[in-house]
Amino acid sequence: MKTLEHIPEISFEGSGSKTPLAFKYYDPEMMILGKTMREHLKFAMSYWHTINAGGTDMFGGDTMDKTFGKEGIERYKAKADFAFELMRKLHIDYFCFHDVDIAPEGASLGESIKKYIIMVDYIEELMKKFDKKCLWNTANMFGDKLFMAGAATSPNADIYAVSAAKVKVGLDVAKRLDAGGYVFWGGREGYDTLINTDMGLELDNLGRFLHMAADYADKIGFTGALYIEPKPKEPTKHQYDYDVATCMNFLRKIGLENRYKMNIEANHATLAGHTFQHELRTAVINGSFGSVDANQGDLFLGWDTDQFPTNVYDTALAMYEIIKAGGFTTGGLNFDAKARRQSNAIEDIFLSYIAGMDTFALGLKVAAKIIEDGRIDSFVEDRYAGYNRGIGRKIVEGKTDFDELYNYALTLKEIQVESGKQEYLESLINNIMFS
Amino acid sequence: MKTLEHIPEISFEGSGSKTPLAFKYYDPEMMILGKTMREHLKFAMSYWHTINAGGTDMFGGDTMDKTFGKEGIERYKAKADFAFELMRKLHIDYFCFHDVDIAPEGASLGESIKKYIIMVDYIEELMKKFDKKCLWNTANMFGDKLFMAGAATSPNADIYAVSAAKVKVGLDVAKRLDAGGYVFWGGREGYDTLINTDMGLELDNLGRFLHMAADYADKIGFTGALYIEPKPKEPTKHQYDYDVATCMNFLRKIGLENRYKMNIEANHATLAGHTFQHELRTAVINGSFGSVDANQGDLFLGWDTDQFPTNVYDTALAMYEIIKAGGFTTGGLNFDAKARRQSNAIEDIFLSYIAGMDTFALGLKVAAKIIEDGRIDSFVEDRYAGYNRGIGRKIVEGKTDFDELYNYALTLKEIQVESGKQEYLESLINNIMFS
Amino acid sequence: MKTLEHIPEISFEGSGSKTPLAFKYYDPEMMILGKTMREHLKFAMSYWHTINAGGTDMFGGDTMDKTFGKEGIERYKAKADFAFELMRKLHIDYFCFHDVDIAPEGASLGESIKKYIIMVDYIEELMKKFDKKCLWNTANMFGDKLFMAGAATSPNADIYAVSAAKVKVGLDVAKRLDAGGYVFWGGREGYDTLINTDMGLELDNLGRFLHMAADYADKIGFTGALYIEPKPKEPTKHQYDYDVATCMNFLRKIGLENRYKMNIEANHATLAGHTFQHELRTAVINGSFGSVDANQGDLFLGWDTDQFPTNVYDTALAMYEIIKAGGFTTGGLNFDAKARRQSNAIEDIFLSYIAGMDTFALGLKVAAKIIEDGRIDSFVEDRYAGYNRGIGRKIVEGKTDFDELYNYALTLKEIQVESGKQEYLESLINNIMFS
Amino acid sequence: MKTLEHIPEISFEGSGSKTPLAFKYYDPEMMILGKTMREHLKFAMSYWHTINAGGTDMFGGDTMDKTFGKEGIERYKAKADFAFELMRKLHIDYFCFHDVDIAPEGASLGESIKKYIIMVDYIEELMKKFDKKCLWNTANMFGDKLFMAGAATSPNADIYAVSAAKVKVGLDVAKRLDAGGYVFWGGREGYDTLINTDMGLELDNLGRFLHMAADYADKIGFTGALYIEPKPKEPTKHQYDYDVATCMNFLRKIGLENRYKMNIEANHATLAGHTFQHELRTAVINGSFGSVDANQGDLFLGWDTDQFPTNVYDTALAMYEIIKAGGFTTGGLNFDAKARRQSNAIEDIFLSYIAGMDTFALGLKVAAKIIEDGRIDSFVEDRYAGYNRGIGRKIVEGKTDFDELYNYALTLKEIQVESGKQEYLESLINNIMFS
Repeated sequence: MKTLEHIPEISFEGSGSKTPLAFKYYDPEMMILGKTMREHLKFAMSYWHTINAGGTDMFGGDTMDKTFGKEGIERYKAKADFAFELMRKLHIDYFCFHDVDIAPEGASLGESIKKYIIMVDYIEELMKKFDKKCLWNTANMFGDKLFMAGAATSPNADIYAVSAAKVKVGLDVAKRLDAGGYVFWGGREGYDTLINTDMGLELDNLGRFLHMAADYADKIGFTGALYIEPKPKEPTKHQYDYDVATCMNFLRKIGLENRYKMNIEANHATLAGHTFQHELRTAVINGSFGSVDANQGDLFLGWDTDQFPTNVYDTALAMYEIIKAGGFTTGGLNFDAKARRQSNAIEDIFLSYIAGMDTFALGLKVAAKIIEDGRIDSFVEDRYAGYNRGIGRKIVEGKTDFDELYNYALTLKEIQVESGKQEYLESLINNIMFS
Repeated sequence: MKTLEHIPEISFEGSGSKTPLAFKYYDPEMMILGKTMREHLKFAMSYWHTINAGGTDMFGGDTMDKTFGKEGIERYKAKADFAFELMRKLHIDYFCFHDVDIAPEGASLGESIKKYIIMVDYIEELMKKFDKKCLWNTANMFGDKLFMAGAATSPNADIYAVSAAKVKVGLDVAKRLDAGGYVFWGGREGYDTLINTDMGLELDNLGRFLHMAADYADKIGFTGALYIEPKPKEPTKHQYDYDVATCMNFLRKIGLENRYKMNIEANHATLAGHTFQHELRTAVINGSFGSVDANQGDLFLGWDTDQFPTNVYDTALAMYEIIKAGGFTTGGLNFDAKARRQSNAIEDIFLSYIAGMDTFALGLKVAAKIIEDGRIDSFVEDRYAGYNRGIGRKIVEGKTDFDELYNYALTLKEIQVESGKQEYLESLINNIMFS
Repeated sequence: MKTLEHIPEISFEGSGSKTPLAFKYYDPEMMILGKTMREHLKFAMSYWHTINAGGTDMFGGDTMDKTFGKEGIERYKAKADFAFELMRKLHIDYFCFHDVDIAPEGASLGESIKKYIIMVDYIEELMKKFDKKCLWNTANMFGDKLFMAGAATSPNADIYAVSAAKVKVGLDVAKRLDAGGYVFWGGREGYDTLINTDMGLELDNLGRFLHMAADYADKIGFTGALYIEPKPKEPTKHQYDYDVATCMNFLRKIGLENRYKMNIEANHATLAGHTFQHELRTAVINGSFGSVDANQGDLFLGWDTDQFPTNVYDTALAMYEIIKAGGFTTGGLNFDAKARRQSNAIEDIFLSYIAGMDTFALGLKVAAKIIEDGRIDSFVEDRYAGYNRGIGRKIVEGKTDFDELYNYALTLKEIQVESGKQEYLESLINNIMFS
Repeated sequence: MKTLEHIPEISFEGSGSKTPLAFKYYDPEMMILGKTMREHLKFAMSYWHTINAGGTDMFGGDTMDKTFGKEGIERYKAKADFAFELMRKLHIDYFCFHDVDIAPEGASLGESIKKYIIMVDYIEELMKKFDKKCLWNTANMFGDKLFMAGAATSPNADIYAVSAAKVKVGLDVAKRLDAGGYVFWGGREGYDTLINTDMGLELDNLGRFLHMAADYADKIGFTGALYIEPKPKEPTKHQYDYDVATCMNFLRKIGLENRYKMNIEANHATLAGHTFQHELRTAVINGSFGSVDANQGDLFLGWDTDQFPTNVYDTALAMYEIIKAGGFTTGGLNFDAKARRQSNAIEDIFLSYIAGMDTFALGLKVAAKIIEDGRIDSFVEDRYAGYNRGIGRKIVEGKTDFDELYNYALTLKEIQVESGKQEYLESLINNIMFS
């Protein structure tokens, strides 16, 4: 990794600009529906992809060098310096990280924690200096071979204990850095085959773990959110946190549905067979909308591609859901996205973030226009208007029963079924987008 | 449809038989793990596919004629006669049906109900005469254009009322025929696009519907089970009852998790991205295992193929889960399967059932052998043995916290992570199957 | 179906219009890159969906009535009147049809042909009166049970002969109506399982069929194109005409690669795991680009949804390929798309076509802007510039061998691998689309 | 990696054995249809997975240590010793490898080749000592960042030259080791996005590369087969060698359809949306069946899982196709399979191979029984019998035309369409398997 001195600070130049290293749509202080873009979007940098990932995939090694020509703690300090300078140049206010992203691992758990705290100290200073905030942090409990069969769902109780230790330290760090939240992504909490797995016990143990984590957060006075990040598969065949509905079922079963929120990732949604919008809506309906991992997958591919989002349809509908939900509180938009393996120049990191941020800025603008236009919302309101009166109102108010509905139904003449007008509504969105 | 006089009663001839119209593995009275095959499997005929479906698909009309050369009620009586004679010849004890399967529809709801009751009378007689039982019944609330946007989730309150009326009648019939259960398959309870859908209201209305249904069942003293049948998509883009976890989340949200059980369909599981075994295990863990729609899909195809099950791996692992869950109580194995469009001879109906029943008989035998062999179960037990002692036991008993686990973890030396032995266990199953 | 008297002629009102029944982007006479939109796009109406399909799916019957309250030939004449009036109001110049779309079937092949010819006479008159052209016609050889196991790949030689007869008549009609082409969509040319299929013989027979068809077309002097329409699955598990590459392999094997072109359907491309753009590019590279069935699928669903296209990314990249290929010659853009089952009003047919036509008009405009902007094309040109000089040029000109390349490679110092800049190029397309 | 001294030689003990480290079904010298199992199956070890892969996936590092506590050439010699000892203990006669599997890479191409040749010398000795053969070798042109945008399809001509040099050396080694073949797997020959790709030029360049390779093989007198290994995606979004049909189209286009054969991988077939059996049948029909990469994927996952095959249905149908094709000539069954990440003990390598070899032995036995039983083959023969007589025969012999077929078809009365009997045939296979 070369330094980024040659990269200018990225400024907003408007849609007419042909400057690659400039925002065309993301204008941080532009007001939209009463808030600035910056407040709406709350962009965060993903430390793992941006600072550490070098382009490796299952069939080849790195295409970018992110070692900074240094070793040990010094390498990680150079990475941190790079990270904050990058955030400054891109006008990104938040960042997210795993413990192993910011510090080297030691020979033992104890040593790893020591190194981690040294780097937390260092980063705390950078946060003050650059005026940046931590959106959330987490612990990597899937990379080391120790966790090959899970962390809080490991068949091995010692590994479960190590996992608890890592999350305890993570929560301590979250508290100290005043993070908006702490994330549980169950990297290997799942199974590869049911014939070697006691799924019931594993889930019960996971439930106990989440209870202990919440208790510990309360004990230390961490007031940020606790998030679960759903993912259906990869690396395991079946991840227990499959999708929002699955996570909420589990949280309700263990009585924690009000304590944990969802960190929804676009590409995890699509891997589960759902649109990004579906998962957002499901979280809202279940009272568990929290934060977002913004990226996009490739629906022709069956793995987590973690691409920078560039599809405005998707970001528009996502921002529509988020605005309707009242916007972010503790959460924000973390780019859990990596530049393609072939995008191996330092400029590509910036071009990728610009692509993603501009796409969400466009999405925000389109979403606001859809709401201001009002035709979509009116259509939906009118469609269900029958539930505001007569038998519909009784249904919604819970003041009827099958006997009454039966008798009522027998009196009905031919019922008019109204068109759902999908094509018209889709063309309406195009018309709003392209005018 | 010709009559089935030329088809002999299907008898068990053993695996050495080359008679197409004979069972090779299904020996109803054979004892397995203390119960007869008949008791373990509780096979049921699906009225819709077996008696009504003629091979139509989206690109072509029927290849089989199932009109019996008659019209109106007479046609449906001929169908019923055929159905019970078929059950007799195949030694199938149960059947399942939608209201519209057994009777023609009338010009109004009232008329349809009248015709339906005429046929219920007729079928009640046949049940006595042939000594057959109803595993479950249900109402078709997806075929008529009235339900194009849903039944209990329709945007139209009148259609909601019609749906309630149909289910009320359905529960009355379930009570009268002493059905083991009543099924809710949400054929069009879902959405095609979120831009025209108030998903929150639709789900709340569905919740109210399920409450009213349970209340009505209680009121009339119907003691059978109430089942929800998960399906992720088709006909709608997103069905609300996506999979077991989604259904259980919804039931917990509305406080009915103890009142409804799951009717799990193999092909719906696979359309949701899960194995059949996964959905069974999930239901068991959530205390909601009920009944099964037995069929198989084609993982290379993205729709509900409803094929007769012929894969012994799948039926063996399904029966393993079912035996471990204590076997069926109110539920059973309904063949929600249709002979392929090209299997257009009357013999094919029988050959298809024989294929499916023999495959489940083989699956039952393999499952019993896996359990008797004990090596799979021992492996799993040993794998988690650490939770029976020391820190593991404290975890399971909820007698520890993050502070203790943290301190404990810091004392650990190198931890041995034991092999999951997936390939060995898979070869073990082959060895059990093929010896 | 009510008449369409109450529907106005659809006119272009521009992107500022809020009139549902008006074009916002399709301005037929607007010049783009030297041709009118009308000439670029060559829109065609699909007779089967537009005039006949009533919303039926695998789980329910029609939601729209398209019988016109008439029977027999009179019904089909009313349909034809409706079709041409609809084309007139929508400014659609072409139409496509199967034999069974325009005429009722008779009790025998001979009778069916007679009725068909009566309707061909009728439609020929309408074509003159309304000044409309036939983009292509075809024969339905998948709907009737006769074709359940294929037509030109049927195991039954008599059915093969019937198929030949239908195509012969179809080619006669194509010649008479001066159709731009004749399409072979192998509805059931494929298999459900290999264990009952002689795939080698079936493909050889299909090859003979295509030879006879080409010979017959030559004999009668039909100068339009012969198209094969690839599709990977549905209704059969595996369709022989899987995708463009598969069709071209087959055509090359039988020596007809220069006689048949491709009719590429967007939704068939995606069912085969390819983007629409990929299939277009593949056809161009193989010299077989012909015509297009324009629609869109839903990548979350595994069947042919045949939706009206509303995604501008897809239409822009498709039009980019088509313009680069020199535009349509015999071919055009047929909307093989159906209004959703819930879009059950007569207005919805028009709203759907407007949605599709406007989306392709937008796509055309974006594609032209991409080409005029030039940055995408320049990037690609520069990327491969090394093949215009030195060893690169020798490679391209076929003037080197492994020995020379080996010796050359051994002299190389560190090779710079240049970034593929995917994110930048994607953001460039957004910038072009949204400015 | 510990040594394998504690692992016994694996011997055949029969299906009754409960010894984990023994064959239950693979009895090398057992005669089946006139050949020994060993001759039928021609098992080969995959060097990359077996000797080098340590369990790393996209979310975590190695779980097994295969460094042998050594560095540089010494490590690779230790690996080779291990490899041959493993083959000896498992009775595997063949092996396959990439250049980088057997030797460390140097700082330059020249140095890498030197080290490679040192190890080729070493392995040649081991081949003599252990009496083992090379099924095929290949060059890794996808791992190094140099190849990030392709090798023979790289936009960079220098990288193309390096690729040529590597294949030249590979062919020299193939000749020297008397390999049965040389494989081209186009690891990164494909694209991630068409907007940065000149697909036409890349394919033309690939064509020139394959011509030069064939010319070079001829020049040095390498008489083994040249194989292309189809794969549809991963690592790139679209791999040019998508499936057998796509490869054959390309080979026919460049006139090399008789010079290259297919190396078909089970898991690549399924990623392309095809069954393993389909790809084998397609290769046979196209005259290009060559060799097999034996493994299995997981149809619920969208990436190349490379699992050891344990599904007997799949291996039975694969062996059925292979036997029908006359068996292997130059090719064989290479286990391109890796033990699961959680199978981290040295025993697991052996248990995995035993699982795979026993599963193919079972498949071979079932396939032979299907053929000996004859009912499947007879059914298919009878189904197409109409093509042996009358109009069918004229069709097959190419002695008819559309006019004759038209006239013939008009004379036909009602045509009987015979059942495809899929369910019966599937149950027949179960009956053969489980008796």
